[in-house]
Amino acid sequence: MNQNTVEQPSGDTSAAGEETATHIRRNFASDNVSPVCPEILAALSAASTGAAASYGDDPWTEKLERRVAEVFEAEARVFPVSTGTACNSLALSALCPPWGAVLCDESAHINNEECGAPEFFTHGAKLLGLPSDDGRISSEMLGRALEKAASGGSHVSRVSALSVTQATEWGTVYRPEHLREVTGMARRAGLGVHMDGARLVNALAFLGCSPAEATWRSGVDILSLGATKSGAMAAEMLVVFDPARAEEMDRRRKRAGHIWSKQRFLSAQLLAWLEDDLWLRNGRNATDMAARLARGLLRQPGAVLPFETESSEVFVVLPELLLEALEAAGFGFYRWTTPPGITGTLIRLVTGYDTRAEDVDALLAVLASVE
Amino acid sequence: MNQNTVEQPSGDTSAAGEETATHIRRNFASDNVSPVCPEILAALSAASTGAAASYGDDPWTEKLERRVAEVFEAEARVFPVSTGTACNSLALSALCPPWGAVLCDESAHINNEECGAPEFFTHGAKLLGLPSDDGRISSEMLGRALEKAASGGSHVSRVSALSVTQATEWGTVYRPEHLREVTGMARRAGLGVHMDGARLVNALAFLGCSPAEATWRSGVDILSLGATKSGAMAAEMLVVFDPARAEEMDRRRKRAGHIWSKQRFLSAQLLAWLEDDLWLRNGRNATDMAARLARGLLRQPGAVLPFETESSEVFVVLPELLLEALEAAGFGFYRWTTPPGITGTLIRLVTGYDTRAEDVDALLAVLASVE
Amino acid sequence: MNQNTVEQPSGDTSAAGEETATHIRRNFASDNVSPVCPEILAALSAASTGAAASYGDDPWTEKLERRVAEVFEAEARVFPVSTGTACNSLALSALCPPWGAVLCDESAHINNEECGAPEFFTHGAKLLGLPSDDGRISSEMLGRALEKAASGGSHVSRVSALSVTQATEWGTVYRPEHLREVTGMARRAGLGVHMDGARLVNALAFLGCSPAEATWRSGVDILSLGATKSGAMAAEMLVVFDPARAEEMDRRRKRAGHIWSKQRFLSAQLLAWLEDDLWLRNGRNATDMAARLARGLLRQPGAVLPFETESSEVFVVLPELLLEALEAAGFGFYRWTTPPGITGTLIRLVTGYDTRAEDVDALLAVLASVE
Amino acid sequence: MNQNTVEQPSGDTSAAGEETATHIRRNFASDNVSPVCPEILAALSAASTGAAASYGDDPWTEKLERRVAEVFEAEARVFPVSTGTACNSLALSALCPPWGAVLCDESAHINNEECGAPEFFTHGAKLLGLPSDDGRISSEMLGRALEKAASGGSHVSRVSALSVTQATEWGTVYRPEHLREVTGMARRAGLGVHMDGARLVNALAFLGCSPAEATWRSGVDILSLGATKSGAMAAEMLVVFDPARAEEMDRRRKRAGHIWSKQRFLSAQLLAWLEDDLWLRNGRNATDMAARLARGLLRQPGAVLPFETESSEVFVVLPELLLEALEAAGFGFYRWTTPPGITGTLIRLVTGYDTRAEDVDALLAVLASVE
Repeated sequence: MNQNTVEQPSGDTSAAGEETATHIRRNFASDNVSPVCPEILAALSAASTGAAASYGDDPWTEKLERRVAEVFEAEARVFPVSTGTACNSLALSALCPPWGAVLCDESAHINNEECGAPEFFTHGAKLLGLPSDDGRISSEMLGRALEKAASGGSHVSRVSALSVTQATEWGTVYRPEHLREVTGMARRAGLGVHMDGARLVNALAFLGCSPAEATWRSGVDILSLGATKSGAMAAEMLVVFDPARAEEMDRRRKRAGHIWSKQRFLSAQLLAWLEDDLWLRNGRNATDMAARLARGLLRQPGAVLPFETESSEVFVVLPELLLEALEAAGFGFYRWTTPPGITGTLIRLVTGYDTRAEDVDALLAVLASVE
Repeated sequence: MNQNTVEQPSGDTSAAGEETATHIRRNFASDNVSPVCPEILAALSAASTGAAASYGDDPWTEKLERRVAEVFEAEARVFPVSTGTACNSLALSALCPPWGAVLCDESAHINNEECGAPEFFTHGAKLLGLPSDDGRISSEMLGRALEKAASGGSHVSRVSALSVTQATEWGTVYRPEHLREVTGMARRAGLGVHMDGARLVNALAFLGCSPAEATWRSGVDILSLGATKSGAMAAEMLVVFDPARAEEMDRRRKRAGHIWSKQRFLSAQLLAWLEDDLWLRNGRNATDMAARLARGLLRQPGAVLPFETESSEVFVVLPELLLEALEAAGFGFYRWTTPPGITGTLIRLVTGYDTRAEDVDALLAVLASVE
Repeated sequence: MNQNTVEQPSGDTSAAGEETATHIRRNFASDNVSPVCPEILAALSAASTGAAASYGDDPWTEKLERRVAEVFEAEARVFPVSTGTACNSLALSALCPPWGAVLCDESAHINNEECGAPEFFTHGAKLLGLPSDDGRISSEMLGRALEKAASGGSHVSRVSALSVTQATEWGTVYRPEHLREVTGMARRAGLGVHMDGARLVNALAFLGCSPAEATWRSGVDILSLGATKSGAMAAEMLVVFDPARAEEMDRRRKRAGHIWSKQRFLSAQLLAWLEDDLWLRNGRNATDMAARLARGLLRQPGAVLPFETESSEVFVVLPELLLEALEAAGFGFYRWTTPPGITGTLIRLVTGYDTRAEDVDALLAVLASVE
Repeated sequence: MNQNTVEQPSGDTSAAGEETATHIRRNFASDNVSPVCPEILAALSAASTGAAASYGDDPWTEKLERRVAEVFEAEARVFPVSTGTACNSLALSALCPPWGAVLCDESAHINNEECGAPEFFTHGAKLLGLPSDDGRISSEMLGRALEKAASGGSHVSRVSALSVTQATEWGTVYRPEHLREVTGMARRAGLGVHMDGARLVNALAFLGCSPAEATWRSGVDILSLGATKSGAMAAEMLVVFDPARAEEMDRRRKRAGHIWSKQRFLSAQLLAWLEDDLWLRNGRNATDMAARLARGLLRQPGAVLPFETESSEVFVVLPELLLEALEAAGFGFYRWTTPPGITGTLIRLVTGYDTRAEDVDALLAVLASVE
């Protein structure tokens, strides 16, 4: 499956006050339709007292660095930014020169939905999308790409980085041994390794391993760790495990307009998210709710789930009749490009940190009610 | 005066809890050391309910556009971003091609303190800093630059835009007739006109004219309107008065990582700031407090104010003895490069939306107390 | 077939004096191993008399423009440059914005062998390689790509240009009706159309149609017309049929270091090449010799030709035993990535403007002599 | 003097056949109006025999590297390109990151007449032009710039390189001790040093020192060595004395379209130029002829020479009456921006490798004949 063209979402996605009297959340279009998590909102208010030095010389940023070191068991460098696109692109620019190339899965967000941001930040590097069954790069495909990259000379872009997405765009999750295999191949070939962890917390819930195990102990040099999809207002962070890769990152951030003057308000979000394992709890809820949803859909006649549901995204092919019923009931979701050979329409349903069992069950009930 | 190298601020700038029992705000280092304005914080909380469509298709963004149209009396296009550097650089990229040049004052923030962000976003355009007495481009200097630009052919970068800063980096303010004169010259020569309005609200307080008069009626094509220095958490907006200049701005924003997925939280800040004239009140307070401070300093023996104080920044040369007294009392400020021919040290004192008369008076009292 | 990794050429390719006593040209590695065509060398000498205005204000450039208008029956703008990579990349930069994407065949030179030059000149546009059987984009694949491009919004790079290669990288040639079909689809979708004509002259020999018919009458907006592979020292030209696309091309050339101060020596090469139909004769010779070679190979037991030979490149799979015999006899060629499912090794044999029947026959004789 | 806007040249600059029956060369507009030096033209013909490996794997390039090592007494890396703009810009891109800045004289060609090429190749670095009296950076101005650069942090572009022009744009020449002083300051501050040697051969003739003494022994890391202005058709070379700076230069060249497929024809030009000291003889002639011209002008009533004539460019202020006489006699030259406080018009007269004493004397005779 190599297309993930986003079409317009169905349902009532634009209404802020969509919640009905029954309090059912019907918007499954994305995990970024959710509001800010109460703990993070409280942290923002708490941070808004008194003067604080600007551009990152504030106590919140300092505490954030210490907390990241704790939860990742590593003296990583941390750079907060407000969007995942910035986070990914800054990471890639530190790993790949302008005449370089980045290997990624053909479904990768960096390759398809960031309007060329990696190319902008790297000053023109190429993204080479490798085909896969389910968003996870296989060692076979990677081996072939690395072999090809080894020849070529100065006519050919230098393959400089591998970017893996965890959880993947199709909702699947790399196992640590798989990850170590591909990152090991990449590192032996001289590539730096980036992880797009916009939904890493959802993968962690599935894997049950430590953040360290899921990242630098599995060969990741730079992690884009996303909090926005998991409760923050707008907060992501580059976690640079290899300090040499962090050189001049502040100048990279500054010239991209990605250093907040009042950075305490970025750091405060991330700090609250990492405190008391809020991040892990939020990630777990979305993954659990997606699993509940997938279990229900598997029992639904006419439904086909082309991928394993291992994090917070559920892809399902449903007959149009059922989709119309969902829309009629006010449920929101995106229609995806249906893979060839399957009848029906592929849709994506995304659960969030704040999705509840009753929201999932309400959706399943609508499907069950169609004759 | 052509140097504004920033040195390290003095005083206790990093302590969030610097406020003493007497509640005196002692941090005059910048207007971005302030917390979020209560009205804006409340708006963020209020916006954090229920699901909302992402990437700008939300009701807050829609209301923001309507409100901007009202306060500027124009059907402008509005693009919220989180930093002034991004706002300025996106604006310039819409006005100037990669092989172009931007005319600006040599003191301009875009030219000195954005680490080459305009060059990044424009893909390599040149910034040509024109010398001035006080941060305001004179029609003489502009005329000379435009004349030079008219010759040259394809060996020479095409001069494509004029950028004016209102209020200027030296705290002075363009009068509308001055502004119309230079923007008129620029437009007749085929240039687009950008205004860096990071502190426009402070200038408006000084001028007493309407926002429309201060901007598009005075020849501005794109305005970078800053709210962060005036009460927001992190919120600025491109206001594009010439709709043709707005083409593909969303793709420009996206590939720079400057579209928030939860954009409602950017728009909600800006909306609250524009509601009930909060922006004008906040701007007026800073300008009034700066004037109070300047009046006090003018009475201080040994103080030299090289510029008129017309907005929220006060530049003053003081003997080291007085600076040490300020530092000893916990006041924070930046030391600047002292212009040649003046004895003492040039410092910058910045007032904010939340500076109070007692804060200013406390600073003046310290100076007066030194024998 | 989607890989054309270039490996090191076999045979004696580096010796300038490789020609033996029998005067057999044995180097089939590329059409750029040839010397300068005598007519062009003479033109360079003739142009080297007296002073001439620099940077293109010279009589040779003026005559070149008139000659191009004649041979293409169009008032095209002409921009001479010294390399095909520069020519292609400048063309694409005029057709595609930094946030855009270019559709091309996955085998395209711009996509594989220019080390990211199109990305550099366009400031980061994406190249989207479409799979094909033989280097020619099918209307089916193009239709699918255009359909996908129509959705997406600002998250997705704007598909802005189609680039076709004539003759293709696999030695095949688009027929005019095929070309009109795909360029028509592209133009209706708002795309500009570029033709990489590094070997257009070889295709013209095969097609027998007029240069106009092969280009702008078939929907091409900008042509990269290559003379270097067909007799010049270092000379290519952008031929811009749509004058609106030529805007600021001189500034684009200048800032890329691609305006010669002594431009008369670029224009003189191209002028001599276009005079007396030298270009067409040179192109025809290479195409004829490739056809002779292909005919011979088709009679060779064990040889498989995966593509039709329609221009100057012959791709053939041969058993290693035969390749070793060729190498032992001093013949030079590149080994290519062999397509899956075929036994033997794929090599590329390229004929030039100066290849003779006896050179081809000598190669075939070596093969025939192997038992 | 801080403006060198080029206006249109006077005289008959566009006529290839401008030489009259008296064989007087009247075009003093630039040293790039000259034809190719006979020795170099002969070398091009000689190189045009037989097949040769492409993209630099040819014997001419190999010999060139050895010859450069000889004449510069150093194991430098050599990269031939066809224009000075490409040569300078590639050099700067190897010395300065995208968020960096290059210090140069405000009159520098890289700063004024390359249409932003250095900004393009460096991906947006800033050029900071330092004011000077005569094109030579003083240690005072450099010291001030380096001091300013030392403060600032990530808000300020990192000053990364110093670029000196030898001979300067005003025809003056750095003495080795001056050069060592400024390059020493730069290197101690961590900057790389570039020399724009478009007219280095003219400076060498004036200095009488060895090429090594004039370059790497005086602190130069990368030299742009120009042959085009001194007899070549289109040939310059990057000479990289610090091999670490040469890393990935071939990929930089390739993606800028600056590797010729038939590179032998670039290398053959440069090789012939360096053989038998042709380069030094050509440089000496231009410098000698400029000196002869300057001596004559100094005797001319009404002429003011604002700079010392130390290489091949003569700047002179003349009354309009005299300029009209020159133009009437068919002499070609550029009018420059006249410095304030001088009556008359500043013009530039450039001598070349092929200027003869009778050409100079003819020009002086015209001036002398005006009553």
